[in-house]
Amino acid sequence: MGPGPINAHPRVLRAMSADLLGQFDPEMTGYMNQVMALYRPIFGTRNQWTMLVDGTARAGIEAALVSMVAPGDVVLVVNFGRFGLLLTEILTRIGAVIETVDAPWGEVVPLDRVAEAIARCHPKIVATIHGDTSTTMAQPLDGFGELCRQAGALSYVDATATIGGMELAADRWGVDVVTGGLQKCLGGPSGSAPITISDKAAEHIGRRRHVEQGIRRDDIADGQGPRIRSNYFDLAMVMDYWSDKRLNHHTEATSMLYAARECARIALGEGLEARYARHAAAGRAMAAGLRAMGLTVFGDDAYRMTNVTGVFIPKGVDGEAVRKAMREQFEIEIGTAFGPLQGRIWRIGAMGYNAMKHKVLLTLAALEACLRMEGFALPLGDAVPAALEAWCQDEQA
Amino acid sequence: MGPGPINAHPRVLRAMSADLLGQFDPEMTGYMNQVMALYRPIFGTRNQWTMLVDGTARAGIEAALVSMVAPGDVVLVVNFGRFGLLLTEILTRIGAVIETVDAPWGEVVPLDRVAEAIARCHPKIVATIHGDTSTTMAQPLDGFGELCRQAGALSYVDATATIGGMELAADRWGVDVVTGGLQKCLGGPSGSAPITISDKAAEHIGRRRHVEQGIRRDDIADGQGPRIRSNYFDLAMVMDYWSDKRLNHHTEATSMLYAARECARIALGEGLEARYARHAAAGRAMAAGLRAMGLTVFGDDAYRMTNVTGVFIPKGVDGEAVRKAMREQFEIEIGTAFGPLQGRIWRIGAMGYNAMKHKVLLTLAALEACLRMEGFALPLGDAVPAALEAWCQDEQA
Repeated sequence: MGPGPINAHPRVLRAMSADLLGQFDPEMTGYMNQVMALYRPIFGTRNQWTMLVDGTARAGIEAALVSMVAPGDVVLVVNFGRFGLLLTEILTRIGAVIETVDAPWGEVVPLDRVAEAIARCHPKIVATIHGDTSTTMAQPLDGFGELCRQAGALSYVDATATIGGMELAADRWGVDVVTGGLQKCLGGPSGSAPITISDKAAEHIGRRRHVEQGIRRDDIADGQGPRIRSNYFDLAMVMDYWSDKRLNHHTEATSMLYAARECARIALGEGLEARYARHAAAGRAMAAGLRAMGLTVFGDDAYRMTNVTGVFIPKGVDGEAVRKAMREQFEIEIGTAFGPLQGRIWRIGAMGYNAMKHKVLLTLAALEACLRMEGFALPLGDAVPAALEAWCQDEQA
Repeated sequence: MGPGPINAHPRVLRAMSADLLGQFDPEMTGYMNQVMALYRPIFGTRNQWTMLVDGTARAGIEAALVSMVAPGDVVLVVNFGRFGLLLTEILTRIGAVIETVDAPWGEVVPLDRVAEAIARCHPKIVATIHGDTSTTMAQPLDGFGELCRQAGALSYVDATATIGGMELAADRWGVDVVTGGLQKCLGGPSGSAPITISDKAAEHIGRRRHVEQGIRRDDIADGQGPRIRSNYFDLAMVMDYWSDKRLNHHTEATSMLYAARECARIALGEGLEARYARHAAAGRAMAAGLRAMGLTVFGDDAYRMTNVTGVFIPKGVDGEAVRKAMREQFEIEIGTAFGPLQGRIWRIGAMGYNAMKHKVLLTLAALEACLRMEGFALPLGDAVPAALEAWCQDEQA
């Protein structure tokens, strides 16, 4: 019950034990096409270029940025936590000119401040995070892409921590590139990064295409733009690989593709609306239970992610001792925190296969017991009923 | 029976269906330490820094090069096939000054020509491929590292196509950094890249360390060298993550780590000597069988890889029709080729779980039948006995 990685869905684990296929076997390329189709609704898009980057979620972020951004490009980062800082970190290495518009950890950046920042710095690309697990905040994105488009900028959003758990709406947001990962709300292992790319962004990236020697073909021309600084993360080549051209690039990570495919099949089988409602119920129940224990939930309820809840470590309690007791006595992991929140909050996830009523209730019961054993005085027995009531809130409404 | 990816060992497939663990769970970090220990003998090294890069084999190559090479550094590439070209491709994007010493596809580069090239261009790094599947040739590497060291250069070898199938001897070769992949002779899926780094290279890379904002710690100082151009492939950060510091970087790809661990356990359980002998027997048998059919094996026997065999497509035979018949009638994949060898040779693998007597014999029997059905006149029934005899050659000796 940490902020991810979390327990995978058993069907995903079983999917990875299927035997491998040749890279260009028609069965394999058929699965690749299925993955493209399966991830479109999950990203809320009709983008043709919806596929996988072979690496962890962070690989998806770097692939997006290094392919979109050329050295010297002005990039505006909408920054409200550790993963906003990660965007600036990656962009520094790419050689971008970085501007930021920031919110303190625990808040989000209002759209009018984004608009002001765009007007101030005329970025070529605007980049942000949907849900930043470091602060448990989710940046509202309706209208975000439109703001960027009006200013002639491409937009990028990393949705690793929300994909499959909170609604992604790449098309409605008007966002050009969105990336994710399997190891949070999709209930899979880390190691594959779903990505979607608008036609406009694909065209932009295609202008930087450079086919490597040894596999050049007369029918695929190089672009005239500055060469992408990475071969592995060159999304122009990755798109050629996922297209009917099937131009060889890396060797697709077959077992991870099976995992990504099964994650999406499970999500669509459940129904995205039902899945988002389940995560919302879990988040609501977790917060209600924690509050019933007398603890203080971190951050503004209006912008909190549904799938991870920050809670202040009460005064006088050794946060690490409680985490250790949770793990050793109950086999339940809860998360520590980064940066300014380190030692101040725990982060408790309820995502993917773990966003289930019984897991939320068991976690609260265990935490109550651990807090009591650590000598913290708290009302006993109130957390579980409060969580159960909050879980059922929508059903009763 | 292509040049990889190939069928995975069933134990590796089962290992991936184990449930996930938290990133810093002691059980997880214990597995990470085991992986470090397990891969040292496989690389033939005592290097402390022996670990995984989370991506396909190509990710391991890029991580090695982008971490070792700063823009403007002179790098000598010992190039004898498509993967040598890939090194130059990646280095171009890194901004290296590239020099090459080349052999035609099907040959290797003699060490004295490497020595001449080093003397000519004074490289900071010398990079090559151990076995280049595009040409089926294996570059001899005894003495290679020593040549580089004498000239004050670091050395790098990609051994993706040979790791677990032909002897790797990083320490005896004196090579600083060696990378691999699971999807060839280790009998696993693509998606995890084992790497080993000498202390000297680790120190060189450490001078470029830059810890990202949000997770900085007082006890970990940045280096003074030029910042590594990639965050994901920053081996200084990856080493900090795999060290006792456990400094957060990407989220380790847990299922792929299980796969990598199981690949190594299987290889060491079989015994590396026995494993290399098995691959050699398979390669010997495949070549003997192909020759008994009247076909011509590609390349010099003295330098051929043991685990993949190139064979000329006979005149008048439609190579793709034969490949299709092999796949559709026999469910056996054999490989096409790249660059100057495209349409001229097939590449037939026998690696990892597929380097087995019965698989070699079945492949030869099927190929004979397909060639006959394509109207090619060949001696019938000779390939299998010839292969069997060659397989047993060492046992009889």
